[in-house]
Amino acid sequence: MVDKKSIGVVKTQFFDFDGLTLESKEKLGPVTIAYETYGELNPNNSNAVLLLHALSGDAHAAGFHEGEDKPGWWDDLVGPGKAFDTQKYFVICSNILGGCKGSTGPSSIDPATGKPYALDFPSITIGDMVNAQLKLIDHLGIKKLLAVAGGSMGGMQALEWLAKHNERIQSAIVIATALRHSPQQIAFDEVGRQAVMADPNWKSGRYYEGPLPSRGLTVARMIGHITYMSDTSMAEKFGRQRKNGIEPFKFTADFEVEGYLRYRGDSFVKRFDANSYLYITKAMDNFDASGGKNFHEVLKGVRAKVLVIAFKSDWLYPSYQSKEIVKACKLAGVDATYCEVNSTYGHDAFLLETQQETHLITHYLKKVSSK
Amino acid sequence: MVDKKSIGVVKTQFFDFDGLTLESKEKLGPVTIAYETYGELNPNNSNAVLLLHALSGDAHAAGFHEGEDKPGWWDDLVGPGKAFDTQKYFVICSNILGGCKGSTGPSSIDPATGKPYALDFPSITIGDMVNAQLKLIDHLGIKKLLAVAGGSMGGMQALEWLAKHNERIQSAIVIATALRHSPQQIAFDEVGRQAVMADPNWKSGRYYEGPLPSRGLTVARMIGHITYMSDTSMAEKFGRQRKNGIEPFKFTADFEVEGYLRYRGDSFVKRFDANSYLYITKAMDNFDASGGKNFHEVLKGVRAKVLVIAFKSDWLYPSYQSKEIVKACKLAGVDATYCEVNSTYGHDAFLLETQQETHLITHYLKKVSSK
Repeated sequence: MVDKKSIGVVKTQFFDFDGLTLESKEKLGPVTIAYETYGELNPNNSNAVLLLHALSGDAHAAGFHEGEDKPGWWDDLVGPGKAFDTQKYFVICSNILGGCKGSTGPSSIDPATGKPYALDFPSITIGDMVNAQLKLIDHLGIKKLLAVAGGSMGGMQALEWLAKHNERIQSAIVIATALRHSPQQIAFDEVGRQAVMADPNWKSGRYYEGPLPSRGLTVARMIGHITYMSDTSMAEKFGRQRKNGIEPFKFTADFEVEGYLRYRGDSFVKRFDANSYLYITKAMDNFDASGGKNFHEVLKGVRAKVLVIAFKSDWLYPSYQSKEIVKACKLAGVDATYCEVNSTYGHDAFLLETQQETHLITHYLKKVSSK
Repeated sequence: MVDKKSIGVVKTQFFDFDGLTLESKEKLGPVTIAYETYGELNPNNSNAVLLLHALSGDAHAAGFHEGEDKPGWWDDLVGPGKAFDTQKYFVICSNILGGCKGSTGPSSIDPATGKPYALDFPSITIGDMVNAQLKLIDHLGIKKLLAVAGGSMGGMQALEWLAKHNERIQSAIVIATALRHSPQQIAFDEVGRQAVMADPNWKSGRYYEGPLPSRGLTVARMIGHITYMSDTSMAEKFGRQRKNGIEPFKFTADFEVEGYLRYRGDSFVKRFDANSYLYITKAMDNFDASGGKNFHEVLKGVRAKVLVIAFKSDWLYPSYQSKEIVKACKLAGVDATYCEVNSTYGHDAFLLETQQETHLITHYLKKVSSK
């Protein structure tokens, strides 16, 4: 049995390039992309896997940063002997364009003004994020990725790779996502944006030198957290348990679930930029993997293989959306495998059901890399 | 065939009384309860039906106010020849205690200060709302109601009547509700409250003389609206339709669904008090029809009959919560009828599936009143 260990201490690296033309035709530059790599690239550069993070993720997918206790966001899946086995694969993860964890985004300095872009940052798309990833892959000397893999917005990026750059990938692992957002998904994002923009500290995005729009972003994140969990997982985690002690204020957090949401909201604002939240959620809402066509037409002739994973209790990205992806693959003659995992965790399952994912991904990558 | 007409022009009335002792033991007084009645009380006072409104409802259930175009919130169900047939029944609807539509609530004048109560208004419960309704029923000379009926929070009040005052009712019509809120339901309410309280205009509730916390309340209402609709009804209503014209601002409402939510949020703040929103949602979260016991023990010996209606696509008050009510009735030997209506409207179905409800309620009231 392989010992499943942590990859250990890792360091974020930075790739700078002149810039890129966005899907909107606007030019953005210079651009920095923050990334991490785990494992070694093999001599013929054929063992690289690109991980794609979700809304609030970053380049730090695995291991530990010097002096920190908290591992990367997919640490259970990345390391020696794990699903993305760093003894076999060269694993890359980069912070998305528009993000706030080292890659160029609205909080970066606009060279034209010497101040943060704020809303002068151009609108970005999932396609732009993937185009920046392509530059990074080129820079690392990789012609073809063994796999791209991600959940939620990471799954959207995987679909974008599949639709537009399938000659550069052998496979796509597409988890808990959709070809496009339903009105309900757009609605939840929009309420989050409204909450941010309703905060007077937001100041039309020009808050970098003053107090941050923390209360608005906290509310947005709280909404997010409800949609990431399931009715069942909330009931299991909190029940109707009341918090200890009674505070004098009438609208205090009486129930455990209220305290938890406030805590999660509060901790989020310390590590995330409110403008990035606006840009990224808008990119998700605007995304349509099929570009207005039928997705099976887009996929015609694609030779990359696809693994689609959905979770039973995920009501934010319900499994019918994953089945639409699989159906389009089948119609287009693309080799697609589908698995609906029996989980009560809701959408969060893509980060939490790591045992099930380990099983599925380990075998899938073995199959793909043996070809 | 009976002609289903509007009840016509109606007028809100006001019932004033000295006050009442709340479940918290605090005293509140004087109290005004706004109410409307439709139809005539029969000579032996046995044909009265009390309608119970939801979070944002009011006493105006049917007909038109002088000079207004918009009928009451359940107009399709209340009138001559309708489900609550005003040729047969004396129909009463009152605004809840804690509300802002004529009944005493946090926006009412505190006699101790001559200013609105704001957060000096005591915490209220669903039980307190029902106790105020009891005073009104006494005032109207009604010993026993033929039925109490309501959806959502109205259903909670119906359950409270059933649990605590069942000797005063012949039947309870309990629609799209729950014995108690799940953590997910509490969570949605809490985010709404946080959105209100995050608005700097809220000023710890003392906003009555200045600008209102409109942006916060708008966000709260937007969250509410998402939970009132279903994934399907949103898809049918909006699809991914974009709004006409492109506005220069990046985070404008691109999609129809965004514009709709903003509109619904904006129009809500014009007619609803933010503090009432806080008090009422908290009352819903604190409600537990079983008072910590098993509900079937509470119901032992109850002779009132129960009709429980749920809607298939209602994910805010899922049908399993209605089935819990029915199960408890059955265990306690209470005469209970259950119907799960096949609707795509989500929780809003209790206001929209009026044809189905008409069918169910018409026959149910006929059965109950024939005994």
